Amino acid sequence: MTKLETESAPRVVIVGGGFGGLAAAKALRKTDAHVILVDRQNHHLFQPLLYQVATSVLSPAQIASPIRGVLKAQRNTTVLLGEVTGVDSDRRRIVVDSADRRGVALEYDYLIIATGASHSYFGHDEFARFAPGLKTLADAVSIRNRILRAFELAEAEEDPKRHADLLTFVLVGAGPTGVEMAAALAILVRSTLRFEFRRVDPSSARIVLVDMAPRVLGPFAESLSAAARTRLDQLGVEVRLGHGVEKIDADGVIVAGEHIASKTVIWTAGVAPSPAGKWLASPTDRAGRVRIQPDLSVPGHPEVFVVGDTASLDQDGHPLPGVAQVAMQQGRYAGRLIHRRIVGKPEPPPFRYFDKGTLAVVGKGFAVLQSGRVRLSGFLAWLVWAAVHLEFLAQSNLRVSVFVQWAWTYLTGQRGSCLIVNHHAPASGDSRAADGAPSSLFREAS
Amino acid sequence: MTKLETESAPRVVIVGGGFGGLAAAKALRKTDAHVILVDRQNHHLFQPLLYQVATSVLSPAQIASPIRGVLKAQRNTTVLLGEVTGVDSDRRRIVVDSADRRGVALEYDYLIIATGASHSYFGHDEFARFAPGLKTLADAVSIRNRILRAFELAEAEEDPKRHADLLTFVLVGAGPTGVEMAAALAILVRSTLRFEFRRVDPSSARIVLVDMAPRVLGPFAESLSAAARTRLDQLGVEVRLGHGVEKIDADGVIVAGEHIASKTVIWTAGVAPSPAGKWLASPTDRAGRVRIQPDLSVPGHPEVFVVGDTASLDQDGHPLPGVAQVAMQQGRYAGRLIHRRIVGKPEPPPFRYFDKGTLAVVGKGFAVLQSGRVRLSGFLAWLVWAAVHLEFLAQSNLRVSVFVQWAWTYLTGQRGSCLIVNHHAPASGDSRAADGAPSSLFREAS
Repeated sequence: MTKLETESAPRVVIVGGGFGGLAAAKALRKTDAHVILVDRQNHHLFQPLLYQVATSVLSPAQIASPIRGVLKAQRNTTVLLGEVTGVDSDRRRIVVDSADRRGVALEYDYLIIATGASHSYFGHDEFARFAPGLKTLADAVSIRNRILRAFELAEAEEDPKRHADLLTFVLVGAGPTGVEMAAALAILVRSTLRFEFRRVDPSSARIVLVDMAPRVLGPFAESLSAAARTRLDQLGVEVRLGHGVEKIDADGVIVAGEHIASKTVIWTAGVAPSPAGKWLASPTDRAGRVRIQPDLSVPGHPEVFVVGDTASLDQDGHPLPGVAQVAMQQGRYAGRLIHRRIVGKPEPPPFRYFDKGTLAVVGKGFAVLQSGRVRLSGFLAWLVWAAVHLEFLAQSNLRVSVFVQWAWTYLTGQRGSCLIVNHHAPASGDSRAADGAPSSLFREAS
Repeated sequence: MTKLETESAPRVVIVGGGFGGLAAAKALRKTDAHVILVDRQNHHLFQPLLYQVATSVLSPAQIASPIRGVLKAQRNTTVLLGEVTGVDSDRRRIVVDSADRRGVALEYDYLIIATGASHSYFGHDEFARFAPGLKTLADAVSIRNRILRAFELAEAEEDPKRHADLLTFVLVGAGPTGVEMAAALAILVRSTLRFEFRRVDPSSARIVLVDMAPRVLGPFAESLSAAARTRLDQLGVEVRLGHGVEKIDADGVIVAGEHIASKTVIWTAGVAPSPAGKWLASPTDRAGRVRIQPDLSVPGHPEVFVVGDTASLDQDGHPLPGVAQVAMQQGRYAGRLIHRRIVGKPEPPPFRYFDKGTLAVVGKGFAVLQSGRVRLSGFLAWLVWAAVHLEFLAQSNLRVSVFVQWAWTYLTGQRGSCLIVNHHAPASGDSRAADGAPSSLFREAS
């Protein structure tokens, strides 16, 4: 078996292969270090396009690339599939579960935690069963199955009330994900129902977007929220603001006392950070994100860094937003800082986020863009949106495939991936108790 | 709701959207009939390339297209998602379960059953858990997950024995599926392990192909079996013939008394027809396929036809093989025969299968071809194989995408879809008891 050649070099462990973790690994590509990236998925997921998998435009392979494929030319880097369950920062090790071993320890000299966020039901976990969230490929495929199955059931349903309930889709949360998803769903419903189904009336379909907030796209300027709102109205999306959902069950939702009958409710609201704060027993903000220092390290542990959605850092008196750009810039910063320490260069100046701008797409050929003092909405903003996303995708070798699919869908209206697949759940028989001898990479946790 | 305009026209129900069912539907496209195609999946699956999904070359959306997308321009045809559970041929209705109703009756004037085959463990159903078969997209994704996860576990495994077991893959059944899968796996192991992993030794990987038969590719001429065998040897596949597997469990298989330790066993052997014979209470052959008449109808029911893998028909003293070509030709024949009856033309001559030839691919740039007296093996046969498959794929709008991916993989060695996705199992909460009023399309079965 090939032994690691850089075993004597310092070991940098990165937890998470999202935007933050991948940027950190790439920043360390020329460092004389042994970089180990651990993720519980084998793929880097391009989350900003996840709603396009959920609405059948793209297939999973078009927005996810295997992490080890992305990093294969980076010979100082080993990728491991495993779920981190804890950090022992005193002994400098993390605890990892893999499919066949539990509680194995992995030592580090430097640690970068980039474990992101998942969705949160704000204490209403009973909603999860009826209103799935959208954070992983499995989530997106599951939501796609639900939406397409609702169309199928409607095609066979002749009772008008049940027919209408099957064609009513409720999205809870009018932030970027909810708005992008609602617009994409409106276009899917209209194009697919009209041409591929024989017995459903596209005009009987309803898409309802609900939020407690007074406007859609809260993080954007008010003028852009208004432009997005107008566009949603044009697309036929019913926007209901100022009231949260009170109840969600198999029959629909209750909003402001009114029952909206629906067979398909999708959760596009809350976000909760990973449990990194608990692992580190480190102070967090109210949302549970780890409070980090200006160099992104954890107080008292200059060798441990936290980046991206699971970190909390203020800049100019405001907390940095949980977006891909922040994660990428922080990951790159942490990687470079570690590189400088290893080669003995002085520490860099404190981290500073450079906001290149924020985009949200509202259906075909329409986006809103906010960058510094620039406010733009419409087709031009959409072109910027498409260009920016294709540029990002290049990092994971996905650009060509997505560009071709987008062009095809834009011109023909055809979707790339309207499949309903009743996937097998992962085999539980995979799990074995740890019984191997201690190895040079791992130690059994004690 | 849009009412069916052709309700007074005769109703032709087709069960199954595979090669046979789709060919039948297309043959009826100009018929003044109401055609209803029922399938339990929403997609037509291009099964001959399923092994390429299992070995990460293609993604599921590249070999499956939504049936209603394929038939959307055929305005006399309605597609329904549902699982047929029985046929009442006296009352001319089939019984259908959908996600929200069970036991609903669907009436027909003509019925075409094209329900295909699934894999069979020859009475050893306990093998299923350890040696999944390859018949559906979900199967292929599940096998892909297993193979890629074995690589991942091997990367973290330092015990040489366990490391080797994780990199040992056993395929049971050396027919076309087993041979194609073994060769594709050999290439995957070699290319992926060498460049993307740091701690595994590609030369420690083993691929073992087991069959009771005395040669691989039994349906082909002996010279082609020998050519395929030589090619498999060159690819490093261990071929073990003349003995079936005696046992399969989580630790591997036993063949001819010898234990082969393996964490990944794949079943590429037996095939069992759908239960159409039981539904019809009609005579079957030993394998359980429905004995049909020369016009493909069932004895005593000239309005009921059975085509493809679930039908049994002899030609020139030999049973027709269970291949896509037979299903397509039979489906087209049954559709045309029904068209002629409806328009009052005389019955066509009995069905006769025209064998265009049989192909099997053995890795990159090598195939065997048998057509009439022609026997061909090597690169030229592989070109024919690629051309024929791209031609077939055109019927389901998949040609461009697959061609681009093949060219890319051929030139770069990169796979399109090395994703491990822990899919959610389908929600069981979808099921509701039937409680609706009788409708014009369906009747409750009684």
